[in-house]
Amino acid sequence: MLETTLAAIRPPDAEAMTAARDLQGRLTKPAGSLGALEELSVRLAGLAGACPPPLPEPAAVAVFAGDHGVHAQRVTPWPQEVTAQMVANFLAGGAVVNAFARQAGASVTVVDVGVATPLPGDPTAAADPAAEGPSGPGTPRLIVAKVRAGTRDLTVTAALTRDEARAAVETGITVAGRLVDAGAGILLTGDMGIGNTTPAAALIAAFTGVDAAEVTGRGTGVDDETYQRKIGVVRAALRRHAPDPADPLGVLAAVGGLEHAALAGFVLGAAARRVPVLLDGVIAVSAALAAAAFAPDAVAAMVAGHRSAEPGAGVALRHLGLDPLIDLGLRLGEGTGALLALPVVTGAVRVLHEVATFDSAGVAEK
Amino acid sequence: MLETTLAAIRPPDAEAMTAARDLQGRLTKPAGSLGALEELSVRLAGLAGACPPPLPEPAAVAVFAGDHGVHAQRVTPWPQEVTAQMVANFLAGGAVVNAFARQAGASVTVVDVGVATPLPGDPTAAADPAAEGPSGPGTPRLIVAKVRAGTRDLTVTAALTRDEARAAVETGITVAGRLVDAGAGILLTGDMGIGNTTPAAALIAAFTGVDAAEVTGRGTGVDDETYQRKIGVVRAALRRHAPDPADPLGVLAAVGGLEHAALAGFVLGAAARRVPVLLDGVIAVSAALAAAAFAPDAVAAMVAGHRSAEPGAGVALRHLGLDPLIDLGLRLGEGTGALLALPVVTGAVRVLHEVATFDSAGVAEK
Repeated sequence: MLETTLAAIRPPDAEAMTAARDLQGRLTKPAGSLGALEELSVRLAGLAGACPPPLPEPAAVAVFAGDHGVHAQRVTPWPQEVTAQMVANFLAGGAVVNAFARQAGASVTVVDVGVATPLPGDPTAAADPAAEGPSGPGTPRLIVAKVRAGTRDLTVTAALTRDEARAAVETGITVAGRLVDAGAGILLTGDMGIGNTTPAAALIAAFTGVDAAEVTGRGTGVDDETYQRKIGVVRAALRRHAPDPADPLGVLAAVGGLEHAALAGFVLGAAARRVPVLLDGVIAVSAALAAAAFAPDAVAAMVAGHRSAEPGAGVALRHLGLDPLIDLGLRLGEGTGALLALPVVTGAVRVLHEVATFDSAGVAEK
Repeated sequence: MLETTLAAIRPPDAEAMTAARDLQGRLTKPAGSLGALEELSVRLAGLAGACPPPLPEPAAVAVFAGDHGVHAQRVTPWPQEVTAQMVANFLAGGAVVNAFARQAGASVTVVDVGVATPLPGDPTAAADPAAEGPSGPGTPRLIVAKVRAGTRDLTVTAALTRDEARAAVETGITVAGRLVDAGAGILLTGDMGIGNTTPAAALIAAFTGVDAAEVTGRGTGVDDETYQRKIGVVRAALRRHAPDPADPLGVLAAVGGLEHAALAGFVLGAAARRVPVLLDGVIAVSAALAAAAFAPDAVAAMVAGHRSAEPGAGVALRHLGLDPLIDLGLRLGEGTGALLALPVVTGAVRVLHEVATFDSAGVAEK
């Protein structure tokens, strides 16, 4: 399935992009006055192969959840059980991602791709992935697609086998395809996993070649001692595995996480379907680097929702050539930054649909 | 009316701000992980005197339109008639502000506070300000409150008399009050006026003391020759009038515009009613400087929607101590940047209303 998906990812449509640039110049506003929104509308026209491109509606967030063997290295002060507890919070509608999704009219799908501890309560009743489309804004749903109960400790051994990494990537592809089949016009990345900024930093260092100290951040807010230990862990993992950036499956297996691998697949699945994928924070952009290594043309489907406060996020975005829409010091994950940026994306496309031209409105030009 | 409004503007409520900070710390997310949204929610709690503050709904944009005698100095390549033509475009729903307002569910009220040329068609039928509340998202309305048909040329004489400036300020106060009376939970500033970045630059220079060359920009995109002429015009106006920043009415009269003065009143009206006012671009922030000079506590009601590409906008925001929510190189005006930022403001408040606490959700803390 991975190979079929990669083969379906094509470059953007130059003709649609030209048409969108031309249309922007005829709308009743000074040329260029919508700044970054104009180029965004052009990119989305290229992705869709149409001008105007379809409005990116409805929106669907997928929150991929997993745990991390590297938690044993004390890279975070939070107990591992919090991953499962937050999944329960998502399903109950109590997290920030739920509040923002309700506001944006987006559905929330939580995917357990590798949570280590049992989920509180009995979520299996809601866990039949074949039976349902995406949930509405009010009713998050759970897909249980656990590849394994958390990764191995990447300071000791590869986090995943190649087969496990592939299974997680293909889970992401499947989820993207299912959401698009159910009508989603844009996909948003979400993540949950205590400790997951450590593998994200390792992935970013592996794909960009930037030093561990420059891509490792304080995640949920660790103290100085933990932060130094975290940098050492990332550096040790890179030294031990020497991952080859030309082999993205190998990189994901060596130093990644199950949610990172699934998100890489989710991005690839969106690109193959020519549906935009709005990236959240540092976990999303680390996964996007893997997706771009699998298929450079996948970048055409990516929109950077925001610049996370994690330093690795900025490094990854520069490597991908993407400018973030929002930059407000967020570092929560879950898909929250992507949801805040969603109205900007919709607005950029809406302009091409709804704004009058100088001709049609009888407005003089300069 | 101006004096009564100024007397009603009070400092934020410290108790509500403390309660909001405390609540942010108990919600199911790492402390500080929502970045600038957390402090924004605290400010809005202080403004409302309540924690959580009310959701900022419904939203009402007021687009103040006026013309400028300084147009005679060739500071812009656009004909003056475009102001009236764009007012017609707003009323027909064809402008970018209309598209963004429909998306955000915001009403649009266009206020002719000083358009120089006749509006196309006969808008008087819709122009009875007493008869209507704010329009819904689909039906913009017009308020005709023309103080005069455009300002005088500020390079030759004062743009307005003090009485005219006061009348425009009081029009803004009246419009703000009427929108709040009709139920608006947040006010958004909008503007239209060919040539209006020139008085905005002069206002910003007058209130901040920063040199004309640093606060004057290219507006809708003028060529080098026009740009140099525009800087010279701003410098000449400041030299001729030597406006006193401690006398905001005098500054507005000497070098302002009718829409700038009305927007200053609109901001004061919002502050007096303790309703947040979301600022758009350089015209809005130049008016906000006047509002802050009238009443320093009015700043507590201001939220900076975005940083306009105009250099004066950044200077004004720093002077006001406000960080913009969005920074995407927009320079359109009309209220478009404020509308794009609106979901961020709503999201910041929504978090305090809807997100579960660690206790209530059964999530462990670090």
